[in-house]
Amino acid sequence: MENSNAGMPKKGKRSGKGKKNENEERCGLMINKLITKIQKTKAPIVVGLDPMMKFVPEQIRRAAFAEHGETLDGAAEAIWQYNKGIVDAIYDLVPAVKPQIAMYEQFGIPGLIAFQKTVNYCKEKDLVVIGDIKRGDIGSTSEAYAAGHLGKVQVGSSLCTAFDEDFVTVNPYLGSDGVRPFMDICKEEHKGIFVLVKTSNPSSGELQDRLVRAEEGSTAGTESGDRPVYEIVGSQVAAWGAECMPESGEYSYVGAVVGATYPEQGKVLRKIMPRTLILVPGYGAQGGKGADLVHFFNEDGLGAIINSSRGIIAAHQQEKYAHFGEAGYAEAAREAVLEMRRDIVSALERRG
Amino acid sequence: MENSNAGMPKKGKRSGKGKKNENEERCGLMINKLITKIQKTKAPIVVGLDPMMKFVPEQIRRAAFAEHGETLDGAAEAIWQYNKGIVDAIYDLVPAVKPQIAMYEQFGIPGLIAFQKTVNYCKEKDLVVIGDIKRGDIGSTSEAYAAGHLGKVQVGSSLCTAFDEDFVTVNPYLGSDGVRPFMDICKEEHKGIFVLVKTSNPSSGELQDRLVRAEEGSTAGTESGDRPVYEIVGSQVAAWGAECMPESGEYSYVGAVVGATYPEQGKVLRKIMPRTLILVPGYGAQGGKGADLVHFFNEDGLGAIINSSRGIIAAHQQEKYAHFGEAGYAEAAREAVLEMRRDIVSALERRG
Repeated sequence: MENSNAGMPKKGKRSGKGKKNENEERCGLMINKLITKIQKTKAPIVVGLDPMMKFVPEQIRRAAFAEHGETLDGAAEAIWQYNKGIVDAIYDLVPAVKPQIAMYEQFGIPGLIAFQKTVNYCKEKDLVVIGDIKRGDIGSTSEAYAAGHLGKVQVGSSLCTAFDEDFVTVNPYLGSDGVRPFMDICKEEHKGIFVLVKTSNPSSGELQDRLVRAEEGSTAGTESGDRPVYEIVGSQVAAWGAECMPESGEYSYVGAVVGATYPEQGKVLRKIMPRTLILVPGYGAQGGKGADLVHFFNEDGLGAIINSSRGIIAAHQQEKYAHFGEAGYAEAAREAVLEMRRDIVSALERRG
Repeated sequence: MENSNAGMPKKGKRSGKGKKNENEERCGLMINKLITKIQKTKAPIVVGLDPMMKFVPEQIRRAAFAEHGETLDGAAEAIWQYNKGIVDAIYDLVPAVKPQIAMYEQFGIPGLIAFQKTVNYCKEKDLVVIGDIKRGDIGSTSEAYAAGHLGKVQVGSSLCTAFDEDFVTVNPYLGSDGVRPFMDICKEEHKGIFVLVKTSNPSSGELQDRLVRAEEGSTAGTESGDRPVYEIVGSQVAAWGAECMPESGEYSYVGAVVGATYPEQGKVLRKIMPRTLILVPGYGAQGGKGADLVHFFNEDGLGAIINSSRGIIAAHQQEKYAHFGEAGYAEAAREAVLEMRRDIVSALERRG
């Protein structure tokens, strides 16, 4: 991929920690907010706000349908009320949330209004909001996505904002001109992205694990020089990240997505991308556990943020939390966050 | 990738042409409608409805801003009015349109309402609508995208539709469990998808052209057995396509996206995916010409549909069509479609 031999961020380019200057105002502040919040909450955890109608308690559904009927509006109202309950219960425990836009988009315009309300509500609660949108397209089109989700759009002489998340996830299949427009907007807006590298799903290896022939003259990778696709993309993310370091702060605002379900690959990718914050989905419901996750973290105990979606927001449907009852779904979510934090913190402590 | 040795659809599985049966009612009808419309219009052309504010004539913008101000609503109204003019001018000439959702999503909720209105309006005009959404995620999330764009969502005891395009584009980076939910919904809804294989942008090769090492025992590809990523994905699309053939009809409802800017790769992919309809972006503004496109077509003169976006919808901004003036933007678009048709048809005739 583009500039794949570009190395790590040059230390010399960054000024000392804590030194605020004009560039810091301009660059990477949202990544620093995220890291600071992880340290404050002692919870490298992001709660996935991926509501499904089957998670939503009967009472909330009934109220929404009474008002709007069994319509897209009714569904959107139900998931919005449901989300609000979750957010109120967990906002002081975690640094960030990750609404998965597909779960809103399926309900059309009303669903996307619920997405927007959720984003805004979480920002009011001072949560960092990672829009899980997995967009990525050719240059001018990626520009439009970046403007709509992280930046501003020009309308006549006005600048308007649309969805306005703090971070979004980006698909790398189209190469750097699908990703750079997001980087450019992040630079302007002090925001960030997480690029898909190795996804958590069972079939992610079909393409991502394929071994790619070494380029002429390359010495990286295995003995033969061959490397899997996810390593190629990981190297590229490290190179993009090196261009996107905040003036003060140890992590780039170009992050990566690597699934908890692939701990071995996580270990390798951690080394390839030392200054990259790794967003790790797949904890809990998808099978990952705290002990599998330690290698996603750097020695400083930072460098990864673990996502759990249904493991938290649908905790009340697990036997373990059934005593909260449907009506106690938000308290169940809070308890699930606390347990997840204990699991991860103790795994990190055991690592020493 | 999954099942990568699966071959072409077995002829024996399909009944003779024109024979309608229960399965035909169930499967792939939208692909047959698209092929039939290509034959009727003699135009293997899809018009990309990717409106940018800078394309929209002053008069339309002024009217929209007068009503809504320089807001997202104002922008959305402007692009909707602009689209309507284009569609009215070209709907009898072409089989299909391809609205690029990013160009609407950047204007937030009002923009997405304009997207929905555009989709509905085009369907009223009997155009086949290809939603260029490039979605793709892990299983349950792809299911939500597929339901929201091609299918129905369950709300209580009701089934509701959200965006309801006829086809959508899908990103293959997550492997088959990101794509199968779309295939499943297509089966139910008689609709189709186009999977990104080789995209038209300059940096598409960074990942898509990487040479992948042959798997043990494989004999496909080059002498060494190595093949570029786009061929791997192309083989997978052919295999998925074989599972998704209409009972009568020569083309699968799992299509592929291959950029006009890469004619050599198009030639190879045409052979790897003989029963796949190829959606070819990158004509005109991105540099492709009719003569470059002949190898995307099969011997039957079918098998490809060429997209042009700004080459048509912003034709009035080209010197060649400047005599139409801004107010004549729709007539300019019509003239540009006619010229594009002549270019492609004569290139196909020259091929003989």
